[in-house]
Amino acid sequence: MTVVRVEQKVLNENQRIALELSRRFAENEILCLNFISAPGSGKTTLLEGTLAAFRPEEKIAVLTGDLQTENDARRLARYGFPVQQIVTGGVCHLDGKMIERALEPWPLENIDVLFIENVGNLVCPSSYDLGEEAKIVLLSVTEGEDKPLKYPSIFHKAALLILTKVDLLPYVPFDMEAAKANARQVNPDIEILEVSCATGKGMDQWRAWLEHRRAQPQAHFAVSSDSRPH
Amino acid sequence: MTVVRVEQKVLNENQRIALELSRRFAENEILCLNFISAPGSGKTTLLEGTLAAFRPEEKIAVLTGDLQTENDARRLARYGFPVQQIVTGGVCHLDGKMIERALEPWPLENIDVLFIENVGNLVCPSSYDLGEEAKIVLLSVTEGEDKPLKYPSIFHKAALLILTKVDLLPYVPFDMEAAKANARQVNPDIEILEVSCATGKGMDQWRAWLEHRRAQPQAHFAVSSDSRPH
Repeated sequence: MTVVRVEQKVLNENQRIALELSRRFAENEILCLNFISAPGSGKTTLLEGTLAAFRPEEKIAVLTGDLQTENDARRLARYGFPVQQIVTGGVCHLDGKMIERALEPWPLENIDVLFIENVGNLVCPSSYDLGEEAKIVLLSVTEGEDKPLKYPSIFHKAALLILTKVDLLPYVPFDMEAAKANARQVNPDIEILEVSCATGKGMDQWRAWLEHRRAQPQAHFAVSSDSRPH
Repeated sequence: MTVVRVEQKVLNENQRIALELSRRFAENEILCLNFISAPGSGKTTLLEGTLAAFRPEEKIAVLTGDLQTENDARRLARYGFPVQQIVTGGVCHLDGKMIERALEPWPLENIDVLFIENVGNLVCPSSYDLGEEAKIVLLSVTEGEDKPLKYPSIFHKAALLILTKVDLLPYVPFDMEAAKANARQVNPDIEILEVSCATGKGMDQWRAWLEHRRAQPQAHFAVSSDSRPH
């Protein structure tokens, strides 16, 4: 089918750009993390809590994607680090070219950690690598423990699952052990953290994870083999 | 760009199939409703509560879409009405051809109301009409009041917004009035209901909305003009 062939070409072209981004991140010793989740799982709130804990002299930068609005960039800019909104204008994911363009005004040697907040979508962003060191998937406990089985691609590719809004556990029918088992069924190597930005629970473990990743030399990005058209 | 042209062709072909589905629904006096939301907003739970209230002799049928698993069909089949799972195998939305194929074994004269539960995704399903009489968008109060502005396409096209999980309002920072104002900014005509399947709040109003729609003659489907590639 022509559509499949064209989609395949788009994904191959994206992989080429992602590899080049990854090479530049490695060269400049940048830890780049790509945050993916459904809309409203708490990506921006987690990033707010994360930025708040960095010292002002740290070299942190954020790219945040949305179909419309600059709301997230406004929220994140309050912490004093460089932030850019990528408005996709309806496109359901960020791609390598958008990241390349957004990075143009930023000297990469001034960045140690680059957070990329993807468009809220548990499906399409998983097919578009952005040169990141790791994908991090967020799942809020209000969404249900079955999601790793229903949306396996992103849980398969993520290095870390952050279960968010755990302060709401007393009020929702969420089976934490089943959620973790489902995630590990799709990806036995996935690391898992439980976090509540409302109470601060788990934020120390998240920061420890982040510092541990920062301390490691940045690996050169391995191209993922998924190229499912969508 | 070739990609845009091919996507355009796919969407045009989908519109042709959607029109034909709509014609068949009108001919058989079927009310078809297309439920769209982010993953975990409560589409399946709302449908469970909805099916539970129908008398067994009513002619209700359900199609439910997911990337993987037949979990939702299993949950919904317990109410005794015909249910079919559409497993998209990674595709981020349902399209007209999938609906056409799923309907093949069902005599349409045996259906009065057809519920379609789309793939959990607030972006892509809004571009693919399925011959439905109306799109219904769900937004859970845990997701935040900014979502209509960030994902305008689906809120623009939906006839009804159902704000779900309102039992959680005491525990989450959700501004109900702002959420409604944001939805109406994108779509001044959108109807809005507040529902909690956990407490039953708002379910009477939802059933009244449904019965009111059932009482109206089914309009022939108007082709929407959105054809944004994604």
